[in-house]
Amino acid sequence: MKAEILTIGDELLRGEIVDSNKAVLSDRLLGLDVETHWQSSVRDDPEQMTDAFRRAVGRADVVLVSGGLGPTRDDLTSRVLAESFGRKWLLDERALDDIRRFFRSVGREMTENNAQQARFPEGAEVLPNPIGTAPGFAIEEQGAWVVCMPGVPREMQRMLEEQVLPRLASRLGARGSAIRARLLRTFGMGESTLDAELADLDLGDVVLGFRTTFPDNYLRPVARAASAEAAEAALERACALIRERLGALVYGEGGETMAQVVGHLLRGHGETLALAESCTGGLVAQLVTEVPGASDYFLGGVVAYSNEAKRDRLGIPQELLDAHGAVSEPVARAMAEAVRERFGADIGVATSGISGPGGGTAEKPVGLVHVALARVSGTHADHFVFPLDRARHRLLTAQVALDWVRRALLGVELVGPSLLRRKE
Amino acid sequence: MKAEILTIGDELLRGEIVDSNKAVLSDRLLGLDVETHWQSSVRDDPEQMTDAFRRAVGRADVVLVSGGLGPTRDDLTSRVLAESFGRKWLLDERALDDIRRFFRSVGREMTENNAQQARFPEGAEVLPNPIGTAPGFAIEEQGAWVVCMPGVPREMQRMLEEQVLPRLASRLGARGSAIRARLLRTFGMGESTLDAELADLDLGDVVLGFRTTFPDNYLRPVARAASAEAAEAALERACALIRERLGALVYGEGGETMAQVVGHLLRGHGETLALAESCTGGLVAQLVTEVPGASDYFLGGVVAYSNEAKRDRLGIPQELLDAHGAVSEPVARAMAEAVRERFGADIGVATSGISGPGGGTAEKPVGLVHVALARVSGTHADHFVFPLDRARHRLLTAQVALDWVRRALLGVELVGPSLLRRKE
Repeated sequence: MKAEILTIGDELLRGEIVDSNKAVLSDRLLGLDVETHWQSSVRDDPEQMTDAFRRAVGRADVVLVSGGLGPTRDDLTSRVLAESFGRKWLLDERALDDIRRFFRSVGREMTENNAQQARFPEGAEVLPNPIGTAPGFAIEEQGAWVVCMPGVPREMQRMLEEQVLPRLASRLGARGSAIRARLLRTFGMGESTLDAELADLDLGDVVLGFRTTFPDNYLRPVARAASAEAAEAALERACALIRERLGALVYGEGGETMAQVVGHLLRGHGETLALAESCTGGLVAQLVTEVPGASDYFLGGVVAYSNEAKRDRLGIPQELLDAHGAVSEPVARAMAEAVRERFGADIGVATSGISGPGGGTAEKPVGLVHVALARVSGTHADHFVFPLDRARHRLLTAQVALDWVRRALLGVELVGPSLLRRKE
Repeated sequence: MKAEILTIGDELLRGEIVDSNKAVLSDRLLGLDVETHWQSSVRDDPEQMTDAFRRAVGRADVVLVSGGLGPTRDDLTSRVLAESFGRKWLLDERALDDIRRFFRSVGREMTENNAQQARFPEGAEVLPNPIGTAPGFAIEEQGAWVVCMPGVPREMQRMLEEQVLPRLASRLGARGSAIRARLLRTFGMGESTLDAELADLDLGDVVLGFRTTFPDNYLRPVARAASAEAAEAALERACALIRERLGALVYGEGGETMAQVVGHLLRGHGETLALAESCTGGLVAQLVTEVPGASDYFLGGVVAYSNEAKRDRLGIPQELLDAHGAVSEPVARAMAEAVRERFGADIGVATSGISGPGGGTAEKPVGLVHVALARVSGTHADHFVFPLDRARHRLLTAQVALDWVRRALLGVELVGPSLLRRKE
C-alpha cells in the first residue's frame, strides 16, 4: 500500500512556515506499515491543486491532504477536490450545525464565510473536528482513499489519531509484514558517541535509527517481522539491551518529556521543588509547569534576573555577589539553598550563566553557566561552557537542571552533558 | 520565473525528520522575487527521482534539489540526474582533490565511497562545499536551471547563500514583474473577523493573505508590479491602509515577536518590568528573557505557584486568599502591585488562572484567568475565560500580559483578545 501526502497553502510555498505535518503524517503511517512514497505541497491555486489531486489519485492508494479547509477566500481544498473529480459540492446540514454549535460554545458569532466549511464533495464522509471549526472529510476516488484534514497541526493530529488512523487500520485488514518501532529518549551523550557506544550490541534484525531534537538524542529501534508478535518481541529484546548498556542516559520513552519524568519522580518520592533562575529566566519553571498537576510538587520560583533581585528576593549577600560575581559557583549554591529554604521545598535548583550574545569577559566567557542543586543532605554544583546560541544555551541549561533533579531522585551521579553536537 | 523545490531522502518520507530546507529555500527565493510553485519530496529511489526530475524540468524555470549527495549507496542524486537526461556521469578531478583535502583537514581518512561525490552529470558546474564533503552542482536542462545541494541544513544554507543565490540573481537580470511582500503581526482579533474588518479596503492589486501562529494572526499583503519600486509603493500604501484600520491590533512586522516589541518600548521609555506568575508558571518571564539584553528592563519575577508562595514570597494577605481564592481579581491585583513594589519596577504584571485540564469548579471553570497590570498611576485588571487546552491557555494568557505592557506604554486601552480561533 502506497501513500502520498499533499499539503496545501501559499504560506508553505513562500517558506513562511516549516511544514511539520508531513513528518507527523509519514511517521504515523509507518506505524501502520504504510510507506509514504511521495510528499508534495502546492499553493492555494485551483489549477495546481487539481493537477496534484489527479496525480496523487493516479499513483497512490492512500492520499492524505492537509490545509485549505478554513473559512477564508484562499481556502479551496473542498471545492477544488469536488471539481477535480466532477463531483457536486454540497452543503452538509449536520456539519453546519456542528460549526454553529462550536461558535456558540466559545461565545462568538458565526460569520457568513464559515458556512463554506460545511460544504463537501458529493459522497464524502465527514470527519468532525472537536477542537476547531473546519471538519475534515474522506472520499473514495478511482480506488484511492483521499482524506482531507485541517492544516492546523493540533487539529490535524487529533483528527489523524482519532478518526483517520483507525479507519485506515480497518481498511488494511490482514496484510503482509509487521513493523514495530519505539523511541528511547536520551540526554547527556552526543549522537556519534551513542552510536559508538552501542556499535557492538547484537540487536538481531532490529535496525537502530538516530534522531536529534536538541538537546536530546533519540534512539529509534525498528523491528520488522512476519507477525506483530514477533516484531514486538524483537523490539522488546533490543530495548532491554540498549537500556542495560546506557543506564540513566535513557530518561524516557515515546512522548515523555524530561519535565514529565521529573514530575513523576517527585510525586512518587513525595518531594517538592523550587527554582531560582537567572540565565534561564523562567524557562525551567515554564517546562515544569507545562505538565498538568505540577502544583502537586512544584512550589514556585524566583526569576532573579538582576543582582538586586538576587540580593533582595533571595537574600544572596552583597559581599558574595561582589567577591565572585553573579555567575559563580558560590552564588549559584547560595541561590539553590536560599530558594529551597524560602519556599520550604525539598529540592532547590539554581542556574546562573551568560547565555549571550553579549556579556562575556575573558575570565567568564559567553556560554559559561553554573548549576546548583540543594537538598537537605547537601548541595551539588558544577559549571559548563556551552558554545551555543542564546536559545540553545538556555534550553540545554534548563535540561541539565531538570536532569539533575531526576538523577538526584534516582540516586545516580549528577553529571553534565557531553552531547554538544547535533545530527548532521 | 517559477521555481520548484525537490528534497530527496527516505528519512523525509518516513517522517524521521521535519524538512526545514524547503521553507528556507522558498523564503530566500521569494527575496529574489522568485515564487515557488511546487515542493516535492521523493525517496532514494531511482524511478521516483527520475520522474520528479523530469516533471520539475518540464514545468519550472529553476529547480532547487537538496539531499542525496552523500557517500553512501542510497545517495543517488547525481547519478540519477545524469541518467534522467541522458548525460554521462563523469569524475571531476578537482572536486576529488577538494574532498581529499577536506578529509586531511579534519584528520580523517577518505574512504572509497567518498569518490562518488566527485562525479557529476556531464556539463555540470561544480559548487564547492567549504564545510562538508559533498560538493553541489548545477546543470542547464531544457531551459531550466537545476541546482543540487547537500541535504544537511547548514551545508545547504551556506551553499545557497554564497553560491546559488548570487548566480540566480545574475540570471534574473532585468526581467518581468517584481513581487514584494510584508508580514503584519496582529494580536487580539480572530482571523475571520480580521478578514471581515478589512473586506471593504481597496488595496488595489495587493493581495491580502492570512496566517495564524497561535495566539497571533498575521496579515501578508503581497504586491506584484512591473518594477520593484512600483511593487514597494503599492505595498507601502496597502500597509498604511491596514494599519490605519486596525490601529494597535498590529503590534509588529516581519520577525518581531511581542516580547521584542515590549522590550523595545520599555527600553525607549526607560521603564522596568517585574512579573508575578501563577498559572503561566514562568512562561511570561521566559518569553521576556528570550530577547538578548532583556536585563536592561526586566528585573525579575516570582513564580508563585502555591498559595504559600503567594503569601510568603509576595506578601498576599492570607485573608485575601481565603476570602476570594487565588484565582480572583483582588489577588491578581495584589500580586501585580506586590511584585512591582518588591522588585522596585515601574510596571508589575500578574497572572492567576486555571489552565486545566483539572482544577475547575462551577463558579471558577477551567479556562478562567485574571490578569493585572500595576503602574504608579494605578492598577488595571480584567478576567477572561479561554476555552483552550493547557498549553494554549498559558500561551494566550502570557501574550495578553505582554500585550498589556505594550498597550500601557503606548497609552492605548488594555483590551483582551476576541481571537480564540486559529486558521481553519
